[in-house]
Amino acid sequence: MKIAVTTGDPAGVGPDIVLSLARYRGDAELCVLGDREVLAQRAQQLGEDVAGAKRLVERLNVMHIPVDAPVRAGAPDPRNAAHVLRQLDAAADGCARGEFDAVATAPVAKDVVCAAGVQFVGHTDYFGERCGAQAVMLFVADDLRVALLTAHLPLREVADAVSVERTTTTARTLDAALRKFFGVASPRITVCGLNPHAGENGALGDEERTVLAPAVAQLRESGMDVRGPVPADTAFIPAKLGDSDAYIGMYHDQVLPLIKHLAFDSAVNVTLGLPFVRTSVDHGTAFELAGGGRADSANMHAAVGLAESLVTTQLATTVTAGRDD
Amino acid sequence: MKIAVTTGDPAGVGPDIVLSLARYRGDAELCVLGDREVLAQRAQQLGEDVAGAKRLVERLNVMHIPVDAPVRAGAPDPRNAAHVLRQLDAAADGCARGEFDAVATAPVAKDVVCAAGVQFVGHTDYFGERCGAQAVMLFVADDLRVALLTAHLPLREVADAVSVERTTTTARTLDAALRKFFGVASPRITVCGLNPHAGENGALGDEERTVLAPAVAQLRESGMDVRGPVPADTAFIPAKLGDSDAYIGMYHDQVLPLIKHLAFDSAVNVTLGLPFVRTSVDHGTAFELAGGGRADSANMHAAVGLAESLVTTQLATTVTAGRDD
Repeated sequence: MKIAVTTGDPAGVGPDIVLSLARYRGDAELCVLGDREVLAQRAQQLGEDVAGAKRLVERLNVMHIPVDAPVRAGAPDPRNAAHVLRQLDAAADGCARGEFDAVATAPVAKDVVCAAGVQFVGHTDYFGERCGAQAVMLFVADDLRVALLTAHLPLREVADAVSVERTTTTARTLDAALRKFFGVASPRITVCGLNPHAGENGALGDEERTVLAPAVAQLRESGMDVRGPVPADTAFIPAKLGDSDAYIGMYHDQVLPLIKHLAFDSAVNVTLGLPFVRTSVDHGTAFELAGGGRADSANMHAAVGLAESLVTTQLATTVTAGRDD
Repeated sequence: MKIAVTTGDPAGVGPDIVLSLARYRGDAELCVLGDREVLAQRAQQLGEDVAGAKRLVERLNVMHIPVDAPVRAGAPDPRNAAHVLRQLDAAADGCARGEFDAVATAPVAKDVVCAAGVQFVGHTDYFGERCGAQAVMLFVADDLRVALLTAHLPLREVADAVSVERTTTTARTLDAALRKFFGVASPRITVCGLNPHAGENGALGDEERTVLAPAVAQLRESGMDVRGPVPADTAFIPAKLGDSDAYIGMYHDQVLPLIKHLAFDSAVNVTLGLPFVRTSVDHGTAFELAGGGRADSANMHAAVGLAESLVTTQLATTVTAGRDD
C-alpha cells in the first residue's frame, strides 16, 4: 500500500510535520509530494546536520515537485501557489494511475492561493471539481464520525443551502463510505436538525418539516437506516453516541466545537465521494510555528494512520464482496 | 436563604423531580410553588403510601397554587397553562418582596401554554418581559460558562439578530454577573465568531468585521477584558478553556451540543439580567416519563444547588463591597 502525502504550503508547518513522518510506524509505504530542497532545508532549520537532513528526506521517498520562488519558513508567498496545486494534481493523478492508494494532505492557506489569482476554497472542493464529484467532508474522531451537509459557508447562507437533494446525496455517499472504508455492514445514520431543538414542531423554523423529514423518508424508503432530523444539542450526549455509526451535521459550527474539544490532535478530516481516499490534517498552515520546532505532528500522523486504515478496510471489503457474490 | 422552586407543567416530570428535593442536602430552605394535591398524588403514583406522600409534601414547604383542571401524569392539558404561569408570577413576586432569594424552575411545555392562547417562548423571555429586563441565557457546566447572544431563533434569522448593541449588552450583563454571582474579580470574556473560522478574514462572512470586532473594541475601551471574535471550533479545546471565565456563543447549536455532551445531567441554565437569580433544569417536560419512576432528578438538584451557590456568592460579594468602599 502506498500513500501520497502532500507538503502543502512550503512556508507553513507542512514540511515540519511531513518530516516527522520519517518516523511513521505504520505498514504503508509513503510518498511525499513536495520540494526536496525545501524539506532538507527545513530539517536543518529544525536541528539536523546536512547528512541527517539528507537521510530524513531519503527516507521520505520524495516525488520532487519544485517550488517557483525561494521559501522562508513563516513567510507565505503567492508565487508558490501553483506549486501547492501541482502537489494536489500529482496526488490525484497518481491515484488515478493506481500508483497511490490514498492521499493525506498537509495544510494550504486559502488566502495565499487566492492571492495568486486562483479561485480556491479548499482541498475538498478542489478535488471534488477536479474529479467531477460532489465531495462530502467527514470528520473522524475515534468512534465519532460526523459528515457536514455544508461546510465553509457564511452562516446566513446555510439555511438556503439545505435541500432534499443535498441531504440524500450526502447520506448516500456517507452510507457507501461507512460500508466500504469503515467496514460497517448496516450503517445507522442520524441527521441533525437545522434549527434549535430541530425546529420544535415548526415553532423555531420549518426546514425540518419541509426539507429534512422528506429527505429522511426518501432515504428510508430506499432501505437505508437513517433517523432524524433530531435536535443537535442532545444528539451527541454520551448515552446516545453508540446508537449511530455516523451523523450528518448541517453546518460547520454545529459540530466542530464538539469534535475539536474531544479530539483536537486526533480528529481527521476525510473527503468522501472522490475516486480515491483522502484524509487531511484538521489544522491550518500555522505560519508562525513553521521551522520553530514547536509544530505538533500528531494530527499528521493521525491523518496518515487513518488513510492506511481506510485503505486496509477497503481492500478487505472488496475481497469479501468478491468472495460472496 | 430561601429558594422558590416551581413545579412546572403538572403533567410532566416537574412534580416527580420536585418531590425528590425532599432529600435536598444543601443549606438553603426551599419553597415549592405548585399544587399540593398533585404532588401528593404523584408521590403515591411513585410508590409512597398516603402517610408517606403527606410527609414528603410537608417537607417540601409547598405554597399551594391550585390547578384548574384534573391532572393525569403524561397528559398535558392547556387548561392548566394559567396554573403554570401563576407559579412563575408567584416566584417573581416573592423575590420582589424579599421572600425568596432565588428561583429554580422545573420544565414547562411551550406548545401547551401557547395552545391556551398565551404567547410564551420560554421562562427566560417571560421573566425578562415581566421585569422589563433584557434577559441573557447562560449555561453553566462545571467551570465552563457560556452565554448565548441568541437562543430560540430559527437559524436563518440568527445573522440579522447579531448586532453591536446586543453584543455589548450581553457582555455587560455577563461581566456583572461573573463578578456578583461567581466571585470573579476581573472577568475574562471570549466572544465567538458567527461564521465558520470567524469569517476567515471576510472570506466566509463579514459580521465579524462589521459587527463583532467593533462591539469588542467598544467593550475593551470601556475597560472590560473581552476578546474575540474567535473561531468557535477551536475556542473550546481543552488547552484554551482556562483562558476565559466565560464565553459568548452566537446561537443555540453553536455551543449546546458541546455543553450537553460534557454535562447532560449537571448543566444548568441561568437567566442573567433579572432583578433575581433564576436557574433552571436544562431538559424538557418529558411527559412520557411522568409518574413512571424513571425521571432523573439530578439536573433539578444541580439547578437548586447552583442557585444556592450563586446567592451565597452574591451575599459575600455584597458584604465585601460594603466593607471595601
